[in-house]
Amino acid sequence: MARRTGRRPGNPDTREAILAAARAAFAERGFDATSIRAIATAAAVDPALVHHYFGTKEELFRATVAIPVDPAELLPAVLAAGPDGAGERLVRTFLAVWDSPTGVAAVALLRSAVSNEWTGRLLREFLVTQVLRRVLDRLDLDPAERPLRGALVGTQMIGLAMMRYVLRLEPVASADPEALVAAVGPTVQRYLTGDLRG
Amino acid sequence: MARRTGRRPGNPDTREAILAAARAAFAERGFDATSIRAIATAAAVDPALVHHYFGTKEELFRATVAIPVDPAELLPAVLAAGPDGAGERLVRTFLAVWDSPTGVAAVALLRSAVSNEWTGRLLREFLVTQVLRRVLDRLDLDPAERPLRGALVGTQMIGLAMMRYVLRLEPVASADPEALVAAVGPTVQRYLTGDLRG
Repeated sequence: MARRTGRRPGNPDTREAILAAARAAFAERGFDATSIRAIATAAAVDPALVHHYFGTKEELFRATVAIPVDPAELLPAVLAAGPDGAGERLVRTFLAVWDSPTGVAAVALLRSAVSNEWTGRLLREFLVTQVLRRVLDRLDLDPAERPLRGALVGTQMIGLAMMRYVLRLEPVASADPEALVAAVGPTVQRYLTGDLRG
Repeated sequence: MARRTGRRPGNPDTREAILAAARAAFAERGFDATSIRAIATAAAVDPALVHHYFGTKEELFRATVAIPVDPAELLPAVLAAGPDGAGERLVRTFLAVWDSPTGVAAVALLRSAVSNEWTGRLLREFLVTQVLRRVLDRLDLDPAERPLRGALVGTQMIGLAMMRYVLRLEPVASADPEALVAAVGPTVQRYLTGDLRG
């Protein structure tokens, strides 16, 4: 445990004030342009208290979107084996998270992102800065192509989640994960490393 | 105009009562198992009045989900040229509808389908019976494979709509439609006619 610093330590209202300030800042200015210092100022607390409660900026961001998994932990294993098969491994990892008890929170976040403009912005920022950027930076790709590749991967992954967990369209809703890895993996692989000009 | 028949003609409450009964029936039992007669009984009106207000069962169904385009009109042109390039043509037609003023209603429906269980069921029924079935029945495919192929097409299309119109992830949100046709068309083509076993 880090030592407690700043004002009002241990006050749950303080924790909530920090989270509210962080949500507003990340949704308005995006992850990159938001600093812990600015969040602390908006919440009227010492920056050290923000770190004490939430750890790094990445960890604080994950707390604002209530995402229970850490892409920084999951993705290296997906990408370590290189670009070949990265699409399949990404789909397999994605389904393992969403099919687990953790998936309930992910579905709730997806529903909330669709109905609430700010949550939608937070989810978009999360996908871009915490997931897609981590994936694309590890593959040897033309930097100019990365944003489109990342967004296309996003379309397939979000669509898979929508059909399997929200709209529950059969046979995708109850398909064996490996059948979906085989069917959808090559799509993600092509978006990551293939020719996108048709 | 068809002649007016049945009870309470011209009453807006009657129209709403029919729509409410239709929504409940389509969401609970699905499109195929729902008859105009059952909807009329639930709404306490004559079946002829249902036809008078809403036309065919397909048209009534579209009214319950507030979908302003008719897949039965749009899809034949997409599919007439045969399976080659059907994926690209499907994506092009999809984007043309969603990019048009009509798309606002489509986005509203998608948002509502995510937050409301019944609207979600209606959208799923619409996709399966009015869009995917029409597409798959025209292509010379193994009937056993059609449901999975249709659902996979659905994952990519819904995901494209989510990223372009709801979460507005760049560069997909403002990409030229033809760039997306080139990037996403081959995915849809593979789901329609390609090998899905990896």
